[in-house]
Formats: sequence, C-alpha cells, structure tokens
Amino acid sequence: MLFKNICMIDPSFEVIENVTVGVKGDTIGYVGPWDGLPDKRGWGEVIDGDMKLLIPGLYNSHGHTPMTLLRGYGENLSLHDWLAMKIFPFEDKLTPDDVYFATLLGIAEMLRFGTVSVTDMYMLCDSMARAVLDSGFKCNLSRAITGGDEVPYYKSDKYQDVEALAGKYHLSGNGRLRIDMSLHAEYTSTPAIAKAVADHCLSLGLNAHVHVSETRFEHEECKTRHEGRTPARYLADAGIFESPATAAHCVWVEDDDLDILASKGVTLAANPVSNLKLASGVCPVHKAMAKGVNIGLGTDSAASNNNLNLFEEMKLHAILHKATTGDPTLITPAQSLACATINGARAQGRKDCGSVSPGFKADLVIVDLSSPNMSPCHNALNNLVYSATGGEVILTMVDGKVLYRDGAWPTIDMDLVLRQVESSRRRILRELASH
Amino acid sequence: MLFKNICMIDPSFEVIENVTVGVKGDTIGYVGPWDGLPDKRGWGEVIDGDMKLLIPGLYNSHGHTPMTLLRGYGENLSLHDWLAMKIFPFEDKLTPDDVYFATLLGIAEMLRFGTVSVTDMYMLCDSMARAVLDSGFKCNLSRAITGGDEVPYYKSDKYQDVEALAGKYHLSGNGRLRIDMSLHAEYTSTPAIAKAVADHCLSLGLNAHVHVSETRFEHEECKTRHEGRTPARYLADAGIFESPATAAHCVWVEDDDLDILASKGVTLAANPVSNLKLASGVCPVHKAMAKGVNIGLGTDSAASNNNLNLFEEMKLHAILHKATTGDPTLITPAQSLACATINGARAQGRKDCGSVSPGFKADLVIVDLSSPNMSPCHNALNNLVYSATGGEVILTMVDGKVLYRDGAWPTIDMDLVLRQVESSRRRILRELASH
Repeated sequence: MLFKNICMIDPSFEVIENVTVGVKGDTIGYVGPWDGLPDKRGWGEVIDGDMKLLIPGLYNSHGHTPMTLLRGYGENLSLHDWLAMKIFPFEDKLTPDDVYFATLLGIAEMLRFGTVSVTDMYMLCDSMARAVLDSGFKCNLSRAITGGDEVPYYKSDKYQDVEALAGKYHLSGNGRLRIDMSLHAEYTSTPAIAKAVADHCLSLGLNAHVHVSETRFEHEECKTRHEGRTPARYLADAGIFESPATAAHCVWVEDDDLDILASKGVTLAANPVSNLKLASGVCPVHKAMAKGVNIGLGTDSAASNNNLNLFEEMKLHAILHKATTGDPTLITPAQSLACATINGARAQGRKDCGSVSPGFKADLVIVDLSSPNMSPCHNALNNLVYSATGGEVILTMVDGKVLYRDGAWPTIDMDLVLRQVESSRRRILRELASH
Repeated sequence: MLFKNICMIDPSFEVIENVTVGVKGDTIGYVGPWDGLPDKRGWGEVIDGDMKLLIPGLYNSHGHTPMTLLRGYGENLSLHDWLAMKIFPFEDKLTPDDVYFATLLGIAEMLRFGTVSVTDMYMLCDSMARAVLDSGFKCNLSRAITGGDEVPYYKSDKYQDVEALAGKYHLSGNGRLRIDMSLHAEYTSTPAIAKAVADHCLSLGLNAHVHVSETRFEHEECKTRHEGRTPARYLADAGIFESPATAAHCVWVEDDDLDILASKGVTLAANPVSNLKLASGVCPVHKAMAKGVNIGLGTDSAASNNNLNLFEEMKLHAILHKATTGDPTLITPAQSLACATINGARAQGRKDCGSVSPGFKADLVIVDLSSPNMSPCHNALNNLVYSATGGEVILTMVDGKVLYRDGAWPTIDMDLVLRQVESSRRRILRELASH
C-alpha cells in the first residue's frame, strides 16, 4: 500500500506535508517525496493523501481487554462496592469463550480508534492469545498473578499457566504476540509471591507488568505493612523492576518512587480517564517527565473508562496536568502523542515500532482531516491531540495489514462478535440472578 | 418523522425500550408504545429504532462559535501570551464574512455531535445571527460588551449594536434565535458599564450572559479592586443577575457566591475541558449542585477546547469531580446528561425544549448503539455518557427539521464553508505576517 502526498507526523513529531509513504510486507519501505520514490509500481493500492493525516499506530500501555463485557455494568459506586458487588461476581462466571469474543470486541474497538497494540493483564489468557493471533492485533499479554504463599510458588498452577503460555505464544504471530509476566499488585500478593514472580520473569526473559499506587489506600497500607516502604520500593526490592517493566497508574507515587522508575527504566503507564472515574486521583506525570521516566498511556478496562479510545487519553493527558499544576505550557501535543506511540512501543520491547520510519513495522493510522472538528488546520498535530475524538480514524494498519477501514474489520466477524458478547452477557446475568 | 420501537432516555432519565416517538411539524407529537399510536400514517419517514438510542438534543451553555477559525492556532502558551500574541491580533482581522462562515462551521460541528443550541457571546453578531437563521440551529446570542466609562453608556455604539440586534433578531426564526445581553466580565469593564448593561438587559427583557471567576487571578484582583467583593457579588450588586442569567466558568467561586447564584436562579455554565486546557482549574460543581444551582455544560471556544463536542464535556463533567473530591458516587450519568439538555434549555429560557416529551420542540438526536465502543449495552445511559465519543450521533433534528444525518448537513453547504474558512484563515495569517 502506498500513501501518496499525505500529511504526516514524523519521528520528531513535526508535521510534514506531501510525503509519500510506501509499505512493503509488514514494513515501512519508503518515506519521502513522491518524486524520489524509486519504483512507482509494485506497492499495491495507492491512497491519495488529500485531507488525510498519517500517524503511527497507537500503543495502549495498560488494559484488561476482556472487560469490555462489563462496560457500564456497575457505575457510581465506591471502589469496594464496585469490586465486591459487581466486578468480581461477574468475572467469576467468565468462560474461555466469553473471554475470546470479549477480547475480539475490545480489539475491534481499539482498531477503530487507531490503536495497534495493548499491554494487557487478565486471565484465561489462552482465549486472549487466540483473539490476538486471529485478529492480527499486537499485544503484550500477561496473566495477572495474585494470591498467598503457595510455596513453592514455581510448582503452583499459576506459574505453570504462565510458563505454558510463554512457551506456546511468546513471539508468536511474527512477534505480534509477546507474553509478559504480571504480579497483579503488592496488595493482592505476598512478598514470597512477588519475589518468585520477579525471579521467574527474569529467568524467562520476559517483560513485567504490575499495578502500582493506584489508590491512596493501597499506597498507605503498603507502607504500613512493609516498614514504610512504598509499593514502588517494595516491588523494586522484590526484583520486579530487574526485568523491563510497566508500572500501571502510579497516582500516589512519591518523588523517591519516581527516582526508582527512572533509574530502573520502568515505564509509567498513566490512565487518566480511569483514574478520574474511579476517583483514584491524578498521576504526577509532570514530575515523572522531569525525572526522565518513560511514560505510556493506557485506557485501563472498559469497566472503568468506559471505552478503549486512546484519543481521549491523549487529550486528557495533555490538558489535565495543566490545570492541576496551573501551568498551561505543560505537556505539548507532541509529548502526548509520544506517550501514546513510541513510548508505548518501547515499553513493549518493540524497538522497530511506534513511528513512521523506514524499516519500522507498518503500524499506521489514517486520520480524516475533512470533518468539521478538524477544520481549519492551523497545525495538524494540535488538531490531532486537542480536537479529534478518535472517530476521525478511517484506516488502521498493523504489520502492513489493514485491520480497520471505513467501518469494517477485515479479520473480525463483527456480527458474530456482537452476537456472542450479548449472549455471554445475558447468560452471566441469568447465572448471577439465580444465586 | 416517526421513530419506531426505539430505545430512549425519558424526562426522568430512565432508559425506556421500544418506544415510538412521532414528530409533527416542529413539535414532538407522540411518545408511547407503537400499538398506542392513534394514527400510524401521516408522520412521514419511519425510522426503525433497532440498535439506536433517542436522546434530547444537547444544549451548549457557553460558546464563542466563530472562534472555530482559531482552532489549534495558539497552543501551550501562558494565558497572557495566548491572548496578547495570538488571539487578540487574529480577532482584530475578522470580517463579517469570516464570522459568518466560521459560525456555520461551528454549527455544523455541533450538529454533528448532537448539539441543537448554543448560548453564545462574541462580536459581529449580525453575521452570527444570519448563520443561525440560515442553518436552522438555535442560539441565545449576545455581543460581548467590554470597555471603560463611555458615559452615557446608552448612547455608545455598543449599546446601539445590542438594541438594534435585539430589535432585528430577538425571537426570530420561529423563536430559534434569542438575543441575550452580555457583560463580558468584571475585569474587562467598569462599574458604570456593568450597571448600565444590567439595567438595559432588564428593561429590554433579555437574558444576561457573563464570565465569572474563570481564573484565580481574575477572582482575586476583583476582590482587591472592589472592597473584597468577588466577581459574583460585584455582578449581583450591579444588577446583572436581576435578569435570567448564565454565569460562565465559576472556577474560583466561593460558597457565598454559590448562594448568590442559587438565590438568583443563575445558571452556572461549567466548561471542564476549557478550564483544564487553559490551566484555570476545576469548578466546584458538586458544591453548586448541593446548593441547587442550575448547572449547564459549555464547550467554550474551539480555541480553548479545541472542539465543540458536548459528549466530551458530559464525560469529563461526570468523572473529573469524582477524582477531585475522592467520591466515585458523585455526578451520575443522568445528572451529567441533565446538565447538557434540560438545564441548558432552561438557562436559555426555552421551557418547551430539552426533553423527549409530547408538546416539546422536536430537538432530537439519534445515537448509533452498534459501534464496538457502545457494546454490550448493560445500560444505554451509562454507555451514552461514559463510552460514547460523539461520533455515534447519526441524526440531529432541530424544531422537527433534520439538520445532520449520516455525514451530511442538509441546510449547510459544507464544501463552501470549508473553502471559505480556509480562505479566511490564510488571508488573516497573511495580514498578520505583513505587519
């Protein structure tokens, strides 16, 4: 596929007009002027770039994709009531088929809003892996490990799950699917489990993914339980950050915690929409940026967001911290887009992803500039981050394959997915009502 | 037009399935079961309600619509630099034609996102009035009055403008266009001007519209200038709130200010996106709600938002205050939708607008429920406020006329508008560069 004379955001986040971008196989083969294109044939379909913007595919740095099934199910409750009365009982009823189709639904939604990959932590991961491979999406997938001291941990079913998962799926789908290892969080596990997960993650050579200081309660309780140590300190001591790691939320992190993240190269996955909606608070990303922490953007789940639209995260990320600090110069559109693209790709260990560069994987998104909310266009990057809603995405390509275009998903049978998800929803509600 | 067996949000904000809604002329003629419809013919086109949600049209309680021309023009600057270096010089170049087409562009955008009316304060209002009347949109329109003690004020050109505007346009377009009177703000006028505007507004029987305590600086400086009186107190003393009034922003209002708004029946127009983006802060809407203040939602201008999409305001309104107060039960989807519909209609003095009720004006919006981010549908109201992006709107009707449908605007020549706006933009930039 060849995008001819299109406006694009380049790797330095400059807006460049009239560029031609050619895709060969799964890779970006050419970026430059139309006149400089050595071979004008053999690229397949030519897409005229008029009134279109080409951007790198977006990377969702923190999600629980199958929770699309719980979208809008429990609202305006305290965190405890929400989890105890709504989320956990519903999740107990999930079958592998429920998770397969709910994952496909989430993938379809992410593709529709220009996302090409997600760093995901959940359960029934075999179903999730199949959905990722079947759809052509990218994912760093992990099973959320929780629990007490089932020692020896490495003999437990949970670890067997993870080991089998990694053996079966790590780097499958031409590397699209990567298996990470997750400790769910400090407060849902024990020191022995945390250490075991850290050790096994390192020995298997996987990336780590963990929830960190999402709520004030979690942060303070951790310090009470562990001699004043914060969750970040505790997890660092357990060795979780010896592997390349993603720390989700970090709303209540302290300055020393940010030093740990910076020195260990941990990615802070900020989830501004979810953090507001669950009343968790506001992550001090401006401090993290000042310390050089790699910052990604995540949607968290559709149960706490309630969509999987990174355009909302990009905009909120770019405006929220202006108000909380009183500084309107904070977080530029370029910085926000970097969080949702190259920073997220880096966090996933994908060095050849996240920007429109020759030799990089062809993870590309086309944004329509002709809708009224994108006009006029003083600056396409400003409009992309501050004015777009996500609905302007007209094409999403992953590894050179078009997975979304003009309301259609070539690799996903959406009628079947919507029918199956509705069927799962009704069955689970019936089962819950019959208790 | 007849919407057959559709899901709708009723006037109590309950989700009702399988309702039939009939439109006769500019009015909602029937709301009830299909079987109960007395006359099944003569309603015109029948729209099948499958996978669709019918909601009242949205009311934008605070805007400066022609500023679509400045969308993305100046970003990430301090308020002073933004205004002095970008906004004011650009605005100085605006011609009546620029404002006409920029208003049409903003109206097209609002219609596309389900908005049917805006409370708008700007200048060159004759052009704005023509755009409103030509498009079929609704508007409470006012010229922003600023300035020093041009006494006698009632002889000044500014007042003549307003009087002529009201005489020519108030209640025109079958009542769609109403003329309000605006004092721009305390800090851009003098006590004599404030009092004159208040008196004339009351004598003309118009609604008032004013910026109040948008920034901390404005709020504190007012107290310094006026013996400790806050902007709300100062404006109340001037008599502005003797007319039905809309107070925009109210970010820094104090408890006593909210008592004034409540007792005077003033509508607080909250603008959460703009307030974050300009680093103004967060309006204490939870306190205003507790005191019974009528709360509307506004986008402010495309220069500080940077779109005119009330779905973003509804979602941010519903989630932001949860985080700033730590209370996830605060502001339900019903309350947020009320702010964007019936509360806004009430603020504009439109008693027969803002809900799907027989006898009310047919200001109706159809939302597509089949997109992946709206599925599954445990509760359509939750999905509307927390999951929708605005792009799900497939039809917007104002006073019984379809003004937006499936990417087309029957009353607006969008090709012409986009061309004219781009031409205005280029001309103004050329003029600015030549100085």
